[in-house]
Amino acid sequence: MRAALFRQAVAELVGTAFLVATVIGAGIAAQRMSPGDPGLHLLEDSIATGAVLVALILALQPVSASFNPVVTLIERALGRIGSATAAVLVLAQFVGGLLGAVVANLMFDLAPVTLAGHHRDSSGHLVGEVVATLGLVLVVFGTLRSAQPERVAYAVGGYIAAAYWFTSSTSFANPAVTVARMLSDTFAGIHPASVPAFVLMQLLGGVLGAGLVALLHPTAEEARHD
Amino acid sequence: MRAALFRQAVAELVGTAFLVATVIGAGIAAQRMSPGDPGLHLLEDSIATGAVLVALILALQPVSASFNPVVTLIERALGRIGSATAAVLVLAQFVGGLLGAVVANLMFDLAPVTLAGHHRDSSGHLVGEVVATLGLVLVVFGTLRSAQPERVAYAVGGYIAAAYWFTSSTSFANPAVTVARMLSDTFAGIHPASVPAFVLMQLLGGVLGAGLVALLHPTAEEARHD
Amino acid sequence: MRAALFRQAVAELVGTAFLVATVIGAGIAAQRMSPGDPGLHLLEDSIATGAVLVALILALQPVSASFNPVVTLIERALGRIGSATAAVLVLAQFVGGLLGAVVANLMFDLAPVTLAGHHRDSSGHLVGEVVATLGLVLVVFGTLRSAQPERVAYAVGGYIAAAYWFTSSTSFANPAVTVARMLSDTFAGIHPASVPAFVLMQLLGGVLGAGLVALLHPTAEEARHD
Amino acid sequence: MRAALFRQAVAELVGTAFLVATVIGAGIAAQRMSPGDPGLHLLEDSIATGAVLVALILALQPVSASFNPVVTLIERALGRIGSATAAVLVLAQFVGGLLGAVVANLMFDLAPVTLAGHHRDSSGHLVGEVVATLGLVLVVFGTLRSAQPERVAYAVGGYIAAAYWFTSSTSFANPAVTVARMLSDTFAGIHPASVPAFVLMQLLGGVLGAGLVALLHPTAEEARHD
Repeated sequence: MRAALFRQAVAELVGTAFLVATVIGAGIAAQRMSPGDPGLHLLEDSIATGAVLVALILALQPVSASFNPVVTLIERALGRIGSATAAVLVLAQFVGGLLGAVVANLMFDLAPVTLAGHHRDSSGHLVGEVVATLGLVLVVFGTLRSAQPERVAYAVGGYIAAAYWFTSSTSFANPAVTVARMLSDTFAGIHPASVPAFVLMQLLGGVLGAGLVALLHPTAEEARHD
Repeated sequence: MRAALFRQAVAELVGTAFLVATVIGAGIAAQRMSPGDPGLHLLEDSIATGAVLVALILALQPVSASFNPVVTLIERALGRIGSATAAVLVLAQFVGGLLGAVVANLMFDLAPVTLAGHHRDSSGHLVGEVVATLGLVLVVFGTLRSAQPERVAYAVGGYIAAAYWFTSSTSFANPAVTVARMLSDTFAGIHPASVPAFVLMQLLGGVLGAGLVALLHPTAEEARHD
Repeated sequence: MRAALFRQAVAELVGTAFLVATVIGAGIAAQRMSPGDPGLHLLEDSIATGAVLVALILALQPVSASFNPVVTLIERALGRIGSATAAVLVLAQFVGGLLGAVVANLMFDLAPVTLAGHHRDSSGHLVGEVVATLGLVLVVFGTLRSAQPERVAYAVGGYIAAAYWFTSSTSFANPAVTVARMLSDTFAGIHPASVPAFVLMQLLGGVLGAGLVALLHPTAEEARHD
Repeated sequence: MRAALFRQAVAELVGTAFLVATVIGAGIAAQRMSPGDPGLHLLEDSIATGAVLVALILALQPVSASFNPVVTLIERALGRIGSATAAVLVLAQFVGGLLGAVVANLMFDLAPVTLAGHHRDSSGHLVGEVVATLGLVLVVFGTLRSAQPERVAYAVGGYIAAAYWFTSSTSFANPAVTVARMLSDTFAGIHPASVPAFVLMQLLGGVLGAGLVALLHPTAEEARHD
């Protein structure tokens, strides 16, 4: 593997690990500190996750900062990266997610891995994952079209903080994060049986989002016309 | 319709849909997760709405990102867009708002459309809508005068998050959003009978705000003098 | 009065009015919606005030965006503005503050003016106002030394949101806002008898802050040395 | 001492003092205003600390804005500053932290110094401090690699706000802040017996973080490759 690709893979692994550690760790902290108040839990989790995304994207963007297989697959489809690179980065994202789950459990004195028992499978949840992922793709690739890529950090942080609230599924919107969240039987967990449908809906949302981006931004040079 | 205008209309439709889906969806989530605590509801909604506006404006601004008929009408009055364009964009905003309401209801396993029963018609509410819309116009067009239009995203996100709190009406400040919020009998809903007065006050606030902007910024090139 | 000064005065008046309307209006909303939970009140107020400051400074900075007599007096001391300009802007700030208090009361269906009964005069409060104003001056003028004045908006918004919490006085740090808050007998009010000491401490903090700024930034061109 | 180093030391002292005053002061305010709700406490503290970091870094960065001995030591290891400078800045950070603790106590009408009784020494806490400091180093030095150093303010503010939540230790991640927090027997305090292990874990996290930064960014000029 070339050195540059190795660094990108490390960045994706570390970034996804911190993202998952935040989602799960903040979930545990919120559950312990605000027992019986799920609204306050979710507020705490949404602020923590949005805030850490701003930090992680700003810090790792000079190397690689997708932290999400859907985003990486669309970058492949757009021809921005090759197939081998995409495969390595997606693998790094999944490994990073699992690592983040283990670290979160350890930081809160839990067993390194516990299977989550939280079923999430209403039809509303599934619609929510399509909408959430579609919107995330729109935000990432819409913002990237501007000349200032650092805006992606603020846009994604704001979007995810909001998407915790506007979907009934709390917006997983990320297959690597979804799989990792099987490994913590806590507030942020998801029962393995709910994972396949979530990932499928995320991929569907990604395809729809990519289509919308192509419609809105036919070329990278497209500026506002009137 | 020219391709550029079509893309602008899609951007306004999609952006307004996500905005309304956030306002209504977060309202439903907050109502379910924090029963009996309206202050926490409003905090959750205000943060979610401010955050999603940052994301949506950053992502769609290269195409079109007003999401508000008052803003579009002032752009028409300023001669920045033509009448036909304005009409298409306003139509897209209203359609997007209705779509967003339906999607929010579906994500939370509710009927696609329910008429809201929440009356909002104290005199304080009406003063609030004038003030809220005046301030929004001041913020949008004041910020646009600077050389860095991306600041609009942070200014509008901050303004709307605050305006949820400093008005008694929670600052609808947007006719397309107001009409869409008739279609969800939930925390964020508004009874159809309260809509005409809200929209009228928003238009009044828009006119006053446009006048204030004209006073403060007589020309686009106006810089600080002393 | 020259046209440019008139515009600056209008900007200071309007900006201070929205700032005070947010402080008082959000205080009333928080009091009504979160009865018996002063911590949640303060969280709501601090977020609303920080967020509106980001918006107002970004929108009005091309004209004038101090909203605070202490800041304007230091600009006079630094020779950035003349005495007549400073006097007009300070007057506009006080008038704007009073206007904002009246508007806030009206938006919440209260009498336009009521005298606040909330005494604030522990020694800790007074230390707090000195520290809060010193820090505000440090943040405003430290940030202005950079080449990107729009950062003032984010720095001041962040600082004030935090200063609500780290001082026992909740950081008024602004004579125009302090005087205006006499006029609303609500959560954000201050008894007239507590005002003189608050303003005196703010002026003291301003002098100390200006001295610290002069020490840290001996010239505007000063860059990092080692 | 040269004038430039003196100014840097003042900036580190003042910045660390405000940081610690916020951590402790907001902790006291939260404890008083939200009795019996530790989740709300932590939310208030995390928002206040993240927000003040944005302000302090933006304001002091033109002079010096590390506020953390781990960061300063890594700057020394990278050859960005000399040993004498590093020693002076670290000393200023510790003195500033102690000053901030005293000021916070005084603002809340407490004795200037009280020894904290809050033990923090589960194994999860120790893992948390390693992870938190590693992540902070990654965020600071990753962001500095970009051409726009002001992003450090937003990245660090976001990171610390999140790290309050994703670690069980609430992320001290800073030896100067840790030592200072011994001096206030309040919500934010730490028993002196818990300090050595915390500082050791922070240094360990710093070393690991510096290694990760070296891996990801072999040269300052490194841009994204593919």
